[in-house]
Amino acid sequence: MGHFKINAKDIMFILKEQLNYGRLCGLERYKGQSERILDMLVKEAIEFARGAVDPLNEIGETVGLRFEGNQVICPPEFGKVYKQYGRDGWTAAARDVEHGGQGFPHMMRIVINDFMYGACQSFNMAPSLTHGAAHLIESFGAPALKETYVRKMFDGTWAGTMCLTEPNAGSNLAALETTAYAQGDHYKIKGSKIFISWGEHDLTENIIHLVLAHIEGEPEGVRGISLFVVPKVRVRPDGSLGPPNDVVCTGIEEKLGLHASPTAALSFGSRDGCIGYLCGEKNKGLAHMFQMMNQARINTGVSGMAMASTAYLNALAYAKERVQGRDVAGRMPGEVKIIQHPDVRRMLLSMKAQVDGMRSMIYTGAFWSDLALELPEGEEKRHYQDLTDFMTPIIKAYCSDIGFKVCETAIQCLGGYGYCRDYPLEQYLRDAKIMSLYEGTNGIQSMDLMGRKMSLRGGACLAAFTKEIQGFCDRQSAHSELGGCVRGLSAVVRRLLEMAAAMSDRNISDPLQWASYTYPALMAFGEVIMCWRLLDMAVIAAENLKKKSSEFYRGKVIQATFFVDTTLPHTSATIESCLREGREVVEISDGSF
Amino acid sequence: MGHFKINAKDIMFILKEQLNYGRLCGLERYKGQSERILDMLVKEAIEFARGAVDPLNEIGETVGLRFEGNQVICPPEFGKVYKQYGRDGWTAAARDVEHGGQGFPHMMRIVINDFMYGACQSFNMAPSLTHGAAHLIESFGAPALKETYVRKMFDGTWAGTMCLTEPNAGSNLAALETTAYAQGDHYKIKGSKIFISWGEHDLTENIIHLVLAHIEGEPEGVRGISLFVVPKVRVRPDGSLGPPNDVVCTGIEEKLGLHASPTAALSFGSRDGCIGYLCGEKNKGLAHMFQMMNQARINTGVSGMAMASTAYLNALAYAKERVQGRDVAGRMPGEVKIIQHPDVRRMLLSMKAQVDGMRSMIYTGAFWSDLALELPEGEEKRHYQDLTDFMTPIIKAYCSDIGFKVCETAIQCLGGYGYCRDYPLEQYLRDAKIMSLYEGTNGIQSMDLMGRKMSLRGGACLAAFTKEIQGFCDRQSAHSELGGCVRGLSAVVRRLLEMAAAMSDRNISDPLQWASYTYPALMAFGEVIMCWRLLDMAVIAAENLKKKSSEFYRGKVIQATFFVDTTLPHTSATIESCLREGREVVEISDGSF
Repeated sequence: MGHFKINAKDIMFILKEQLNYGRLCGLERYKGQSERILDMLVKEAIEFARGAVDPLNEIGETVGLRFEGNQVICPPEFGKVYKQYGRDGWTAAARDVEHGGQGFPHMMRIVINDFMYGACQSFNMAPSLTHGAAHLIESFGAPALKETYVRKMFDGTWAGTMCLTEPNAGSNLAALETTAYAQGDHYKIKGSKIFISWGEHDLTENIIHLVLAHIEGEPEGVRGISLFVVPKVRVRPDGSLGPPNDVVCTGIEEKLGLHASPTAALSFGSRDGCIGYLCGEKNKGLAHMFQMMNQARINTGVSGMAMASTAYLNALAYAKERVQGRDVAGRMPGEVKIIQHPDVRRMLLSMKAQVDGMRSMIYTGAFWSDLALELPEGEEKRHYQDLTDFMTPIIKAYCSDIGFKVCETAIQCLGGYGYCRDYPLEQYLRDAKIMSLYEGTNGIQSMDLMGRKMSLRGGACLAAFTKEIQGFCDRQSAHSELGGCVRGLSAVVRRLLEMAAAMSDRNISDPLQWASYTYPALMAFGEVIMCWRLLDMAVIAAENLKKKSSEFYRGKVIQATFFVDTTLPHTSATIESCLREGREVVEISDGSF
Repeated sequence: MGHFKINAKDIMFILKEQLNYGRLCGLERYKGQSERILDMLVKEAIEFARGAVDPLNEIGETVGLRFEGNQVICPPEFGKVYKQYGRDGWTAAARDVEHGGQGFPHMMRIVINDFMYGACQSFNMAPSLTHGAAHLIESFGAPALKETYVRKMFDGTWAGTMCLTEPNAGSNLAALETTAYAQGDHYKIKGSKIFISWGEHDLTENIIHLVLAHIEGEPEGVRGISLFVVPKVRVRPDGSLGPPNDVVCTGIEEKLGLHASPTAALSFGSRDGCIGYLCGEKNKGLAHMFQMMNQARINTGVSGMAMASTAYLNALAYAKERVQGRDVAGRMPGEVKIIQHPDVRRMLLSMKAQVDGMRSMIYTGAFWSDLALELPEGEEKRHYQDLTDFMTPIIKAYCSDIGFKVCETAIQCLGGYGYCRDYPLEQYLRDAKIMSLYEGTNGIQSMDLMGRKMSLRGGACLAAFTKEIQGFCDRQSAHSELGGCVRGLSAVVRRLLEMAAAMSDRNISDPLQWASYTYPALMAFGEVIMCWRLLDMAVIAAENLKKKSSEFYRGKVIQATFFVDTTLPHTSATIESCLREGREVVEISDGSF
């Protein structure tokens, strides 16, 4: 029995009523599909998450990993579910049928991951990384590479990783030292990688590493990085497994959380026997890798949100059962369920709004990314590409930090019990903490947003975002019930855009001051998007409430006014902080700390 | 080698320059002491924390506890240091010499705990709880009880606990079910307690439990609770140990953190053989216990701050060493120390201000509590009693929540390494999380502040606080360098007091709405106190800077303007939230979640 909880009604509301995701079936790529099929996929994914993945969470935590003789031994259940996950089509649900995918909309990968991460973060990293790695080969690899690797990764026979970080090259990949030497039709790889999630394990008999390395003789820095396919076990031309490929796991990290997800240090070619295959163009490795990194960044936001979601629902279930203390207003005699205590209720409402808002933010971004990928060339497609680029760092950083915060609040609802292993909350907190750190720290995300993304394509990303959010505000500012909140949002958006413009100037005139406030600036964008998505849902719910009363729809309205009203004043405060002239961060000397 | 870090200069600045703590030696109780002696005590305490306590932190985490046959086995080093801690006088540093104390000012117990908790939270709970338990006997026990127990607890021979919580009586002690039956000069105790920190261990041959129980036939609820001294092993009239006292540990919790601090479930009198001695007045148990609970609440704030302090200093040390990435403004070639990255620097400055502000808040409160205890009867004494009562829930809740937040930020400075056990940050985060939960959740603290403390003695607590903070604002509002910040604080204080008054009205007219916002209201008080203490330090530092330049003093000014300027707008937003008319928290139905 696991602890995973999900409210399918909340999911379907966003997908169907807010996004009308069936519209995707009008796109050429999805012409054989229908909303009914997508609905069924969602239901099946929830069932699989509940039945197969959820039990792994506790097994992983109690049994954990063993590291013996350069090998990682996982609980046996993990291997079984991994294979089933691939075989049943979850790994490649959104990939083209050509190499074994199911051809569902790209956004369904995000929706599926919502449930799978929520059920077991440690486990779901394995198929998710495998998907990303195989997709890299599918996108950039030579036909022979695709033929050999992609299908077997998609179907759960093999697994995959992304190998970027080295001891001295974390946030700064330009410093990486892994080297590739040309040798016939392949390369010899030599170097060490660390922090490789699922870099070594026994779920599958082969692991396909996608490795960034510098080809000898090519330019220094990021312009000389190439991408390589490096199998753990060599693959013969007929597809059967050959000898080991001199990829050695030298250790795994002991970590705060993710105890069932091995974080490996890998040594490539320490005995000169490591062969790799160039994937994509020479020296374009980093650009290629960004396809996987952008997916991983979105997935990191998904993880933060998904853990927050199940943490919230666990706290809610506890609050509805646990009896303790008297009613503060004396509405009922004797001791009451703690959900009756306003301070607990405030935490629950705040978590509800945060989870629902983050989920809507993420699903909306995923929906846009489908349009970005599948619309025919033209202005509309570019609009959605701009939006997707813009949303990526916000989803990653905002949902990871707020996801963690929600896990903390969920613990608080349980009092001392929240601190005990008898409940899953303490694990969610530990597992969620990684999200702000990996796939580029949240500081890195904030510089990406306020720097690169602001200037990309002449500011097209911010323009696309502005068009969407201002369009919403204009349409709804006279709403009978929610107009006040919408007008409040509209005013903050105006100031937010002024801040963004001022910061873009500062990025050039005073980059140190700029970089002192990129993180709060990103969080301000995140909060504004949350308000927008929550109000958008509330408008739909209010329309439904005209027809008949419903606690479900009423909750959508209530969470929106509560969140918007208590958040926007803080957003304004944050925006003004970003614009302040005080230069303390820049001016404080090292010796003053 | 441990990881404990402390900046003694910061400590001495608050004690000597901000509080002029040597003034305490003018009080009758401290007439034999001098500031020089107190300074020496601080230095020695830091040395003891470093040399003896710090190493326990890693031992406790790696060796941990074993539970075997109803006994808890601790790493042997814990017992050695516990005895030394008592023998060297740390446990009873602030207690009267009559029963083996050192007679130092009460505030020194807080200062000492700052270092000891910072060095090893799990361990220092043991002497700290022993101190509280022995102090209860010293304050309320009959002469024979004092004679038998107090000295041996103070000197490290025995240990002590507080036993309040039961499975169905956590926040609500009125529901407790442990019973006492009179039998000659003592009572027979029967019942179960849970979550008893250091409730069972092998550091000492006896453990003296201070137990809340209901005497048969006395009134129901809190008015029928009495306090009992219940030794684990019976003590003969000559002071030697007799047979066991039927106190059985039935299990210890598995927890997120504090892995070396046993959290025990205890069964009293399951074989009818548990003897207890009434401590203090019959039916006044809860009132007596509040002496220990108030100390424990302050200590909880101290723990949050102390862990934040060492977490910050560990992150700082890392940021000064770790080389990664290029300077964003190109000020220097090649890769730079990460302290040069403004986003890292922002986190460091923010942590520095939070730690220094919390420490000043706590030390100031401790200083006031000394005056409250030791001044002769009169208006001044009452003023400081009012302040002490007012500060307790704020110190507990604010410093526990912000302490945790600082630990999170410290992890963020290390990137992926912060998630790994190779560094102590992840443990600080886990250990710090308990602080918002035990000794009354932070929600409970907020209702204590905004309810009981606002109305206590006709509002005298808030009046005393107002006098202090407004006095500061009035004195410094024209300060040449910091006047702007002070005036900003003054304006927020005005609005804060309006909010407090409005909420006090609401507490009567609309208690549900009131209780929905007590927690944010408490945090607003906390932020205002932080700004005040930081500005107070900055004013002193600015005065010193007129004489000669100093990076140390400059840091005090910089942290204040940064914190005040970026915090107060949020405080204002929080205050307005507390006053809002929106009743979402109250009105949302259970079914809408």
